[in-house]
Amino acid sequence: MRLATLRRGGGTVAAVVRDREAAPVDGHADVGSLLRDEAGMDAAHAADAWAPFDDWELLRPVLAPGAVLCVGMNYAGHVAEMGREAPEHPTWFSKLGRALTDPGADVALATAQVDYEGELAAVIGAGGEVAGYTLLNDVSMRDYQFRTSQFFAGKTWQRSTPVGPVVVTPDELGDLAALELRTEVNGELRQRASLGDLVFGVDELVADLAAFVRLEPGDLIATGTPGGVGHALKPPRYLEDGDVVAITIDGLGTLRNRFTAAVG
Amino acid sequence: MRLATLRRGGGTVAAVVRDREAAPVDGHADVGSLLRDEAGMDAAHAADAWAPFDDWELLRPVLAPGAVLCVGMNYAGHVAEMGREAPEHPTWFSKLGRALTDPGADVALATAQVDYEGELAAVIGAGGEVAGYTLLNDVSMRDYQFRTSQFFAGKTWQRSTPVGPVVVTPDELGDLAALELRTEVNGELRQRASLGDLVFGVDELVADLAAFVRLEPGDLIATGTPGGVGHALKPPRYLEDGDVVAITIDGLGTLRNRFTAAVG
Repeated sequence: MRLATLRRGGGTVAAVVRDREAAPVDGHADVGSLLRDEAGMDAAHAADAWAPFDDWELLRPVLAPGAVLCVGMNYAGHVAEMGREAPEHPTWFSKLGRALTDPGADVALATAQVDYEGELAAVIGAGGEVAGYTLLNDVSMRDYQFRTSQFFAGKTWQRSTPVGPVVVTPDELGDLAALELRTEVNGELRQRASLGDLVFGVDELVADLAAFVRLEPGDLIATGTPGGVGHALKPPRYLEDGDVVAITIDGLGTLRNRFTAAVG
Repeated sequence: MRLATLRRGGGTVAAVVRDREAAPVDGHADVGSLLRDEAGMDAAHAADAWAPFDDWELLRPVLAPGAVLCVGMNYAGHVAEMGREAPEHPTWFSKLGRALTDPGADVALATAQVDYEGELAAVIGAGGEVAGYTLLNDVSMRDYQFRTSQFFAGKTWQRSTPVGPVVVTPDELGDLAALELRTEVNGELRQRASLGDLVFGVDELVADLAAFVRLEPGDLIATGTPGGVGHALKPPRYLEDGDVVAITIDGLGTLRNRFTAAVG
């Protein structure tokens, strides 16, 4: 099953999507609300009021997650390019829910060192389990990320982190290790890795978190980015006005956003 | 004005408190809700249905803040004891809202290296300004904090961070620099510092955050801890079963919690 949050009239609604059609699940303003409600998930499975998809605007699937848990240094290639050692434990940091933005939204080039990080994100369901997967661009203001020892100030800029376009359930997505993640900037391939190359896989990340966080429906776990970020190129290449970043994982679609100096 | 969140029947309610009396502000389940609502704040100012205070159980003032923004290395004494350099910028990290717990609540000794950090916390109001102050114990699992480069995993343990007992408005609290913070463990003084010794004062912290976060009512800003944490003692002294940590700032009262191996 593929789930999305759509703009409808003045509000939003969760929906099941397939090919070029969507079936709204009334009573749920976003996928986060739907994941909290077993009856809602049953309604989603039974959805049959399909409408053409082109009419809808896709939003980030969970509008306001209670936790956005991110892990750094989780692909060997990225660990090496950032000049670090292979970690013994996941390197957790977080973003605020308000740092997220929508598929297709413009993202402000708020500092001189805005960079992309293509990532697989897990979405948590009602029982604290992984209910689905989506794409996340862990946009990083490198100047603020490395201003102190803690990444947070470079990771949580208001409405800077695109998520989406859809949440795909694990049964539909299949074996993660068989999937590839690709990030393109203006069509130029910058990141390409197998999800099988994650240092800590999704199950290991969830198990590690379980020691200290009670996961809630709609929580996101961003699983880290592979090698190829702009900051690690020689010389570094940060995003520029008009650049379009497209992150693709087979089965999850493409998360595409334009970066612009013009957004307030 | 002094605001608190009280347990009442099966629910909770925001209230104005004075001496040994409380006046509930109906329609607001916590101080966070009250801060979001100008009419509610007017009702609080006009509160006159006083009841004896002893009947009430005090909870953390904001039950589920959207952001708990913490700064490390913000007193010269603590910077030195942790073996670090004086920072040029605030060292931001975050906790999840679900990491907070109540005044008087028992806190689980979830790892072998649980430590206290007495702190002043600012509480954000409707306009993004500082609407009041409270106390926060930035409880830190040092083994997890220093497991990787990022503090987060040691800082956000479920229901580990006490906040309260009350929120005091800036006009009532007066000049911060004239106030002293003290932390006692089982009555033994461990931390003592003037709030005038903050490296980055509250106004500077809010100004720094403004670059990347749109503050919302109920957000907390934990301003850092002075020297004297257990981790920096030689040898280190972590909290043990039954220890009581009491944090006091003149005018804000005392935040007192017992640490126990027995809590699940």
